Amino acid sequence: MAIVGGSEEAAVVVRNKQVILREYVPASGFPKESDMCVTTTGTIKLKLPDQAGSDGVLVKNLYLSCDPSQRSRMTKYEPSTHFVSFQPGLPIRGYGVAEVLDSGHPNFEKGDLVWGITGWEEYSVLTKPAADTLTKIQHTDVPLSYYTGILGMPGMTAYVGFYEICSPKKGQYVFISAASGAVGQLVGQFAKLQGCYVVGSAGSKEKVDLLKNKFGFDDGFNYKEEPDLNAALKKYFPEGIDIYWENVGGKMLDAVLLNMKIGGRIAVCGMISQYNLGGQAEGVHNLMYLVAKRVRVEGFLVPDYYHLYPKFLELVLPYIKEGKIVYVEDKAQGLESGPAALVGLFTGRNVGKQVVVVAPE
Amino acid sequence: MAIVGGSEEAAVVVRNKQVILREYVPASGFPKESDMCVTTTGTIKLKLPDQAGSDGVLVKNLYLSCDPSQRSRMTKYEPSTHFVSFQPGLPIRGYGVAEVLDSGHPNFEKGDLVWGITGWEEYSVLTKPAADTLTKIQHTDVPLSYYTGILGMPGMTAYVGFYEICSPKKGQYVFISAASGAVGQLVGQFAKLQGCYVVGSAGSKEKVDLLKNKFGFDDGFNYKEEPDLNAALKKYFPEGIDIYWENVGGKMLDAVLLNMKIGGRIAVCGMISQYNLGGQAEGVHNLMYLVAKRVRVEGFLVPDYYHLYPKFLELVLPYIKEGKIVYVEDKAQGLESGPAALVGLFTGRNVGKQVVVVAPE
Repeated sequence: MAIVGGSEEAAVVVRNKQVILREYVPASGFPKESDMCVTTTGTIKLKLPDQAGSDGVLVKNLYLSCDPSQRSRMTKYEPSTHFVSFQPGLPIRGYGVAEVLDSGHPNFEKGDLVWGITGWEEYSVLTKPAADTLTKIQHTDVPLSYYTGILGMPGMTAYVGFYEICSPKKGQYVFISAASGAVGQLVGQFAKLQGCYVVGSAGSKEKVDLLKNKFGFDDGFNYKEEPDLNAALKKYFPEGIDIYWENVGGKMLDAVLLNMKIGGRIAVCGMISQYNLGGQAEGVHNLMYLVAKRVRVEGFLVPDYYHLYPKFLELVLPYIKEGKIVYVEDKAQGLESGPAALVGLFTGRNVGKQVVVVAPE
Repeated sequence: MAIVGGSEEAAVVVRNKQVILREYVPASGFPKESDMCVTTTGTIKLKLPDQAGSDGVLVKNLYLSCDPSQRSRMTKYEPSTHFVSFQPGLPIRGYGVAEVLDSGHPNFEKGDLVWGITGWEEYSVLTKPAADTLTKIQHTDVPLSYYTGILGMPGMTAYVGFYEICSPKKGQYVFISAASGAVGQLVGQFAKLQGCYVVGSAGSKEKVDLLKNKFGFDDGFNYKEEPDLNAALKKYFPEGIDIYWENVGGKMLDAVLLNMKIGGRIAVCGMISQYNLGGQAEGVHNLMYLVAKRVRVEGFLVPDYYHLYPKFLELVLPYIKEGKIVYVEDKAQGLESGPAALVGLFTGRNVGKQVVVVAPE
């Protein structure tokens, strides 16, 4: 902490390193590191400003989460759409783990550890609506970074998507795309605990090895080495697929539609292969099979299900402590590494959940 | 009935006019009248042959139903797929209304009226599995042709799709494509009875007039006159769409995805715009919106729900008799007109449910 002003009586003022969005990114095209810049010129008073009022929380950010949905928010959207765009010239935002330094909010006090929406910067003043996304961390006998992943939004996504949307049954055939990522690795482990047969796809040998050797998947394949995805799925699922966990979209979805079993379910968690294509998203051609196979496809967003968070923790914390579920993180050190870590999601550079370490615990 | 042989003692032999599939039709391209031929050379004994056994029924066909799904069966499919192809050189098949002339089947006797899968010919010998699709008609105080439409498979499709798949609620916004067709006209009327706001699309002014003036839709439009389907839907549904009844696929589905409300439902009944495109089905580009809008898409096939048929009749028969539901049919006279009527479905030639009248009642 670099003290640049103030006294013991007045509030301490410190430098506040930030990851700033330079300007809106076009809807089409991969985001680049240079779309963001890391500034060290800003400062912040380590006291909640009066205008933050009873909603405000001043936090020191510890870990930041890189999530595919942040891509969408780098583009300018009409106010009427679902997405709330980031503001050029201000830090980008996302899920993170932080320590409360000062609070006017009734739910939090100095010293609390929280997870929720925060800024990509060392210190953030959070007010509504971000402050309402914060959850106090009650269990600290696990790595705190897990609250950006297995114990945070991605974990809840896997949980509600799998148990609430997929209607899984023992012995069913489950296919997961982007299977070694923040959500996929957990869906696969839930499916194994449920007694399903689980195959995942990922984008490198290293990731496929993780699926098979670390996460206990029955099988896995590198989609980049499969010239014919339909043939690959036929090989791994000669009986067809009961449940498809959709993380990628495009060609993979088309191949899956050809291989669904009658009465199958597709949980649409995301379509990362399409996020940088803007209005040019790949066409999906095999939707006709939804009828012949009587398939249900359901999109969902995890904030609709946060009331289930306590139930989720009850299930997953013991699994983590007993080693029945493992979680692989890819930790980028320091805010400076944030932009590269975030854009790396879209080329699959990360192995496991991508986290940015802002400050040592 | 042209008696060509036999005596009072022996079985009567009559000519049996048939609509024959000449050869398999490619998966891609519109089917043509000339893919079928009408022959009058065949004859049939008006007595169930011994080999038909205890499953067999000999019927005289009265009405035949033209259904989009018959298109698929004109193409050769691998045995592993859902579709059972027609046999070149034999009559095509489909739903129809018929009179039982002779029966070895315990459920039927001479004189019964039935509806179910039959052949496109004057007389058919039906054995398993077709004979098991037959349902004895109990209510004859409605036009018998209705059992190819509102009281048959299309009616059940509208019923189970709307009430079982769409989860309709009073006041919700319902959009129906191919809305004046065999199924769409009924879905719209169910939705109105449920207190929904209903708009339909169709392919001519005449059909749109039917929607608004005959079926009681709140509004309707001719999709052929809308250069921008997204803009059209925004105009008709400024608040968005809760329920989309999907009959057509392709560009319409893409436009609908942009206009769904959060938590919306899409019942996939068919995608007639895609049936003649083979492997070249139009791509659907906006599936990403399934996530942002938390939309559920569900394909279904009505045979999975036939146990609900008595409940369906209980609902719909009184509506018909009280004039609360009306049904428009497009009747082609004579088997000779069958091929043109069937292929006309794909150019939208029919106004209302397309029926072929084989014999006067």
